[in-house]
Amino acid sequence: MNDAKIRLYVDQPLGAGQTVPLDRDKAHYLFGVMRLSEGAGVLLFNGRDGEWLARVAEAGKRGGLLHCEAQTRQLRMPPDLWLLFAPIKKARTDFIVEKAAEMGAARIVPVQTDFTNAERIRQDRLQAHAVEAAEQCGGTFVPEVADLVRLDRLLAGWPEGRQLMFCDEGFADGGAATAPSAPLPCRASGQLPQPWAILIGPEGGFSPSERARLHSLPFAHPVSLGPRILRADTAAVAALTLWQMRLGDWDQTA
Amino acid sequence: MNDAKIRLYVDQPLGAGQTVPLDRDKAHYLFGVMRLSEGAGVLLFNGRDGEWLARVAEAGKRGGLLHCEAQTRQLRMPPDLWLLFAPIKKARTDFIVEKAAEMGAARIVPVQTDFTNAERIRQDRLQAHAVEAAEQCGGTFVPEVADLVRLDRLLAGWPEGRQLMFCDEGFADGGAATAPSAPLPCRASGQLPQPWAILIGPEGGFSPSERARLHSLPFAHPVSLGPRILRADTAAVAALTLWQMRLGDWDQTA
Repeated sequence: MNDAKIRLYVDQPLGAGQTVPLDRDKAHYLFGVMRLSEGAGVLLFNGRDGEWLARVAEAGKRGGLLHCEAQTRQLRMPPDLWLLFAPIKKARTDFIVEKAAEMGAARIVPVQTDFTNAERIRQDRLQAHAVEAAEQCGGTFVPEVADLVRLDRLLAGWPEGRQLMFCDEGFADGGAATAPSAPLPCRASGQLPQPWAILIGPEGGFSPSERARLHSLPFAHPVSLGPRILRADTAAVAALTLWQMRLGDWDQTA
Repeated sequence: MNDAKIRLYVDQPLGAGQTVPLDRDKAHYLFGVMRLSEGAGVLLFNGRDGEWLARVAEAGKRGGLLHCEAQTRQLRMPPDLWLLFAPIKKARTDFIVEKAAEMGAARIVPVQTDFTNAERIRQDRLQAHAVEAAEQCGGTFVPEVADLVRLDRLLAGWPEGRQLMFCDEGFADGGAATAPSAPLPCRASGQLPQPWAILIGPEGGFSPSERARLHSLPFAHPVSLGPRILRADTAAVAALTLWQMRLGDWDQTA
C-alpha cells in the first residue's frame, strides 16, 4: 500500500531490495520533524531510477535506513532544454530556479550579462531549490544548476546543434519587446523535442552590443512575449510555456 | 524632457494642465524616500487616461502637488480576461495577483473551492499588489481584485457569452493532468479577443463534484498544462501565457 506522503530526493541508487542510508539532515527531517517511525512509507527519487516507495527500516537521531519496496513512477526526463537567465534579486532568482524545475528544463544556467549586477551566485542554494521543487511537484528528475558564466563566453563556445530562443524584455528598450524576425518553429507531430536553450534577459535589458550579437547568431531566435513588459521571473515562466507548447513535450492539441 | 524614473498610480483624473494633489503617503514616498524636489518629473497613470509626465509643483512633508505636462503613453486595455484562482499561501497568492496584472488580466477573482482552506482574503492588500505590479511594469491599466466568492455561486451566476478555460492541476488526481476533451479554440486573425476567464484549481485539486460540474458546463474548456504537476502559481502564469498566445493580444506569429 502506498501511504507515503513525503517525497525525498536522495543521491543513492534506487531499485528493488535496495537499502538507502540516511544522513543526519534527512534523518532529522524524517524522524524529528515529520515523526515517521519504523515501517512508514517514503517516496524516493534520485533523478536516474524513477520514483520508489521505501519503508523506514531503522530510525535514529543521527541516521537511519530505508528499504526500497517497489517502483511507483518511471523516470521522466524533460526535453533537452536549458534555461539561461541573468540573476536578479534573491527571491526572484530562487523563484526562476523553482519554476524552471517545475516546467521541465533539463539544465539551469545563470549568466552574467553586461547589465547584470551579480558577480557570484550561491550555486549550492539554487541547486537545493531545484531539488525542493522536484520533491514538491512529483518530478523524478532534477535539473542541474550550473555555475555563473559570462554570456559572451557561453555564446563563444555554443554547442553545435542547439538552438537558442531569446526574450528581450525590460525597460531598456522603452517598453516595446523586439518584434520577432521570423516565427519560432513548431515541432512536427511525431518528432522528438530537439536541443534548445531559452535566454531571459536581465531586468535592464541586453546591452546594444549583446543585442546585436544575439541577432547575428544563426542559431538564435528572438521571440516576443506580448505587448506588456514582463519582469524577468514572469518572462521565464511565459517563455518556458511558449517553448513547451511549440517545441517541447506538452500536448500540442491543448 | 522625460527624465522621470518613478511611475505612480493615482486616483485622480490626468490630462493636459491637470493638477494632482498628493496624499501624505505619496508625498512621503516621493519627497521623503525618493528625495524628489520641485521640478522633478514623475510618470502618473490612473487606469483610465494613459500615462502622463508630471512635474513636482509643491513638495511638502504631508502633501504636495504635481502638474501634468504631457501624455507619454496611451491607455492600453488588456483583453476582457478574468483570472479565477483559489487562494493559497500568502506569498504565492501575492505572486499570482502580481503576475496576473503583468500578464494582462482585466479582473482577478479569488474563489473558494471545496478544497480551499482560505475563509477570507485581504482584498485591499491584493489590490495594492496589482497596483504595484502595474507601476513596476509600465502598465497603464490596473486589474480589479474582487472579493472572495464561492466557486459554485460564481458558476451559478455566470455571465452569458463568457468562456471559461480551466486547469486541473494538483496532487489529487495522482499526477496526471486531465486530458483536454477538445482543443482550445484559437482566435482568428483580425478577430478581437473575446470575454474569457481562466480558472486555476487549488493545490489539492478540484473536488469530484466540482470537476464533474466544470466538465458539464457548455462554456467551460478543460486544458492540459503539460505532463508535469505545476504549483498553482506556476499554473497561473502558464495558463495566462497559453491563453494570451491563442486567444489574447499576443502576436500570434511569435
